[in-house]
Amino acid sequence: MYIYPHIYRKLKRVPQVVLPKDIGTIVAYTCLSKDSIVVDAGTGSGWLALSLARLCKHVYSYDIREDFIEVAKKNKEILGIDNIDFKHGDVRKKIDEKNVDLVTLDFPGSEKALKNVKKVLKEGGYVVGYLPHMEQVKAFVAKLEALGFEEPYVVETIVRDFLVRKEGMRPTNKGIWHTAYLAFARKPHS
Amino acid sequence: MYIYPHIYRKLKRVPQVVLPKDIGTIVAYTCLSKDSIVVDAGTGSGWLALSLARLCKHVYSYDIREDFIEVAKKNKEILGIDNIDFKHGDVRKKIDEKNVDLVTLDFPGSEKALKNVKKVLKEGGYVVGYLPHMEQVKAFVAKLEALGFEEPYVVETIVRDFLVRKEGMRPTNKGIWHTAYLAFARKPHS
Amino acid sequence: MYIYPHIYRKLKRVPQVVLPKDIGTIVAYTCLSKDSIVVDAGTGSGWLALSLARLCKHVYSYDIREDFIEVAKKNKEILGIDNIDFKHGDVRKKIDEKNVDLVTLDFPGSEKALKNVKKVLKEGGYVVGYLPHMEQVKAFVAKLEALGFEEPYVVETIVRDFLVRKEGMRPTNKGIWHTAYLAFARKPHS
Amino acid sequence: MYIYPHIYRKLKRVPQVVLPKDIGTIVAYTCLSKDSIVVDAGTGSGWLALSLARLCKHVYSYDIREDFIEVAKKNKEILGIDNIDFKHGDVRKKIDEKNVDLVTLDFPGSEKALKNVKKVLKEGGYVVGYLPHMEQVKAFVAKLEALGFEEPYVVETIVRDFLVRKEGMRPTNKGIWHTAYLAFARKPHS
Repeated sequence: MYIYPHIYRKLKRVPQVVLPKDIGTIVAYTCLSKDSIVVDAGTGSGWLALSLARLCKHVYSYDIREDFIEVAKKNKEILGIDNIDFKHGDVRKKIDEKNVDLVTLDFPGSEKALKNVKKVLKEGGYVVGYLPHMEQVKAFVAKLEALGFEEPYVVETIVRDFLVRKEGMRPTNKGIWHTAYLAFARKPHS
Repeated sequence: MYIYPHIYRKLKRVPQVVLPKDIGTIVAYTCLSKDSIVVDAGTGSGWLALSLARLCKHVYSYDIREDFIEVAKKNKEILGIDNIDFKHGDVRKKIDEKNVDLVTLDFPGSEKALKNVKKVLKEGGYVVGYLPHMEQVKAFVAKLEALGFEEPYVVETIVRDFLVRKEGMRPTNKGIWHTAYLAFARKPHS
Repeated sequence: MYIYPHIYRKLKRVPQVVLPKDIGTIVAYTCLSKDSIVVDAGTGSGWLALSLARLCKHVYSYDIREDFIEVAKKNKEILGIDNIDFKHGDVRKKIDEKNVDLVTLDFPGSEKALKNVKKVLKEGGYVVGYLPHMEQVKAFVAKLEALGFEEPYVVETIVRDFLVRKEGMRPTNKGIWHTAYLAFARKPHS
Repeated sequence: MYIYPHIYRKLKRVPQVVLPKDIGTIVAYTCLSKDSIVVDAGTGSGWLALSLARLCKHVYSYDIREDFIEVAKKNKEILGIDNIDFKHGDVRKKIDEKNVDLVTLDFPGSEKALKNVKKVLKEGGYVVGYLPHMEQVKAFVAKLEALGFEEPYVVETIVRDFLVRKEGMRPTNKGIWHTAYLAFARKPHS
């Protein structure tokens, strides 16, 4: 049975949330650090944005839906953190920040934001697409390549949990074996 | 083909390193934050300890082998970080720190350190065992339960990578499908 | 969503059945053929025994529970096959057949039958243990080695299913990721 | 380390062979039996066709490359079986057989054969596409649906092998985690 790490148990959620298994891979594969500035879109329930904010310097999280932002703001309060700004806006049209270390994208058609993403990323900075479907992966990677991003890398994370008893160690019988593919790439150094 | 995130490509390594896939799960499943104090043992090449140090407040990393500590110190220099202390010592005998948020254990027989780990953890703090073999998982979990740790949870992380081309999207044919099981637990609130 | 191949949809079942994913691996990894004579224990609902009987020459399936044999006999009728005999008996005590090509074992403590299994197998014949827990795998393999079986090989089969739509190809979100480990070995040629 | 079941160790191979893990799933998910008539294309090294012939009544295996058929004929001799005919021909153009229980397709563009496949299948008979790439799966399933096949079902089979020792049970570190997707469907009953 999937067990949420403790901070997630108290958070509110709209239907789709990014699970800790994917948050972990995003953190590790983008070399996130305490000094990182992150832009995130779409906010959704804010689970990814808030998780990153707990680890990095500042997160700017965009969503086009104000009702989602309200949920995420509640979650921010629950976690008691302040290094995150929720912004009502469309990153396909405009991203206000500059010199960003990481941009995380989780919305349908997110490849349409990649041109703006490239502008605001630092050299060597990372973009990640959270992409449930294979067709989205193809479209995202094609756009990454067209825009000259480097080191495109696509993965899928499966975290299996185990029953450990005096007699009877085994994986659980059923589990979550797909949420989304993660497509990573970096802005080249000039 | 497994591709290391960029910071790892420049690091030195002794035979066994903790891979980013497991580092990610450790970070996410222990709710690590910028404020966390971490104790780590054994250091090995320092990949796990250094990765955590890049995200948290301070890491104290113990090893009984001074030659490993030398490698890890080189890696610290390469990464240019200073919030980590490498200590020559045996956590089964003594851990100097107090009020620790997370203890990560990666050495054979690590369950023998759990008594000390419980003393130094904050209430609600996490311990993680990095355990290549199933017998180690059983011994570790049995000791966790004997010592009254809470929420024991054992997982295995598989990160599959994909080829994405104009025609021919598919997972790579071969890959790393086991490094270690991760056993998590928390110190109870009194 | 897991979909049973059509013959299984009409079969009756007692709580535990061997799934087609494991039946397939058993068939392929033991080089079963139309000429094979198979001994099976315990029968359970008969899914494994009946599936093998549809492919091989004859199956003798033992169970110590007569109520299970009744269910399996109903399933035999439903499938309309006759090259299978259900036998009330304990293979740990006695196996009547000789020159057997394959013995499949699916009951707790099945390693206790391995001595008898070795006697009735042809040289080069296969034994398979269907073993839900890791401790069972260890006990089974230890006994295989003590008795001089050759080529011990332990696997786990995961069959993931996919949604394929005009837009939106992806693995299903949840699925069966563990039923049992399969431990194979062969009787040596003298 | 992947170990081939014994019959495969003596067989010749051209670069791509269908592995036992996929052969097992094909057998189990198509409800193959001793009475089944199978059409297979392309032959390749004949591993799939020969494995099915060892279990079913007769296999007709087509390839457009005569050099592949020569390899498969050698493998037929090695296995000493006679219920298989290798045919030089293109199933996209013509399939000679009628009332077939199963058609297995393993060549690029195999969806182009589905119209002929539907003609030669029995009602309720199965077709399987062995499809390395996701784009092939989409094209294959789209054609299945356009032609009115029923119960389309797409899976991927992963067989992980384990080290089992006195101390140190664990999955092997590396393994084959992708060969091909398998797309199944049935000809409807009229």
